[in-house]
Amino acid sequence: MAIGEALAQLKKGEMVVVFDSESREGEADLMFSARFVSPKKIETLRKEAGGLICVAIGKQDAEKMGLPFFTDIFERGAPELKELTCRKTAYGDKPAFSLPINHREVYTGIPDNDRALTLKKLDEVVRERKGDFMKEFYVPGHIFLLIGRGIENRRGHTELALELAKRAGLDGAMVLCEMLGTGKALPKKDAMEYAKRNGLVFIEGKELTG
Amino acid sequence: MAIGEALAQLKKGEMVVVFDSESREGEADLMFSARFVSPKKIETLRKEAGGLICVAIGKQDAEKMGLPFFTDIFERGAPELKELTCRKTAYGDKPAFSLPINHREVYTGIPDNDRALTLKKLDEVVRERKGDFMKEFYVPGHIFLLIGRGIENRRGHTELALELAKRAGLDGAMVLCEMLGTGKALPKKDAMEYAKRNGLVFIEGKELTG
Repeated sequence: MAIGEALAQLKKGEMVVVFDSESREGEADLMFSARFVSPKKIETLRKEAGGLICVAIGKQDAEKMGLPFFTDIFERGAPELKELTCRKTAYGDKPAFSLPINHREVYTGIPDNDRALTLKKLDEVVRERKGDFMKEFYVPGHIFLLIGRGIENRRGHTELALELAKRAGLDGAMVLCEMLGTGKALPKKDAMEYAKRNGLVFIEGKELTG
Repeated sequence: MAIGEALAQLKKGEMVVVFDSESREGEADLMFSARFVSPKKIETLRKEAGGLICVAIGKQDAEKMGLPFFTDIFERGAPELKELTCRKTAYGDKPAFSLPINHREVYTGIPDNDRALTLKKLDEVVRERKGDFMKEFYVPGHIFLLIGRGIENRRGHTELALELAKRAGLDGAMVLCEMLGTGKALPKKDAMEYAKRNGLVFIEGKELTG
């Protein structure tokens, strides 16, 4: 039932809180569809979530846009540093990170207005003009592009976000940000209380994968 | 006089507020020496500054550690994407960005404890055991490593931070984070008020370069 509510909220442009699982990161992310991004929402993410503001796109979209994983570029571009490459994180997955991007129309790229612009334009490019990605964006920028491997292959927030988008009928990009507590990830019960206090739906990864 | 006070504060492990200039980013950063990092300071940066939590090291240190600029790796590793490379930002400089790193002992890399650990260890490696960088860290991570080009070549927050460290006799790494206001960079007068309210020294780039 919570999934149905989460999809309804996402379609309306609202945020949802998604906890992955105790056996993985044990982390809750705030997320929403990038087509509904606004500077105000970016302010909420940085003030109330506190992690990195990232954007997830699917593997097929990434391939059409010519976008690789960060580690692929890194290994080709800096073979002398290959010892640095993360093959597997402490929680067992390969990283989802591709590239840090900015839209070419931003000034510095970091204020709410700039990050919202980068996210809005990325969502448009993914949905409407994939071939224009390279003309419209630059690297290195301030928004962290993640590529989903599909929920059958990886159960990270990247894949959970894209699975929600798919079920909600929202193609395009999903914005996500880790929720932090003092010192550590925001505990699950605090993430649930945050959701309740703010009228947001809270779901767990197992509701999407189980 | 403010510079002398800033150096004294940095030596004590305190933060300072540094505004670059109206003709560049027009942005204030909170910064401090990485040897004094703590989870509490990371919490302050994410809650009260709001930008990316970055760490600056000097060019000579970066060379000894084998660390290139992001754009160098990107152009070698993804020549088919070279159109994406930022040669010059909207405010006129080349980016200072090198690599996003985590220390190998972190769990996810993003909570205050993890980011403080990555920063603390990086500072130690820069000061004491540069050759161990590749053994102790991995990419992609959650702390953004910046390389300073020297204040005679670039007057960004990266170079201002490292110039302050040099004058304070603090070798090692400097932590910095952009201060954001609603929608846009925190206006200079608000950054000055923030500094005053929190007992921090406020300085401008021209005091270091003029």
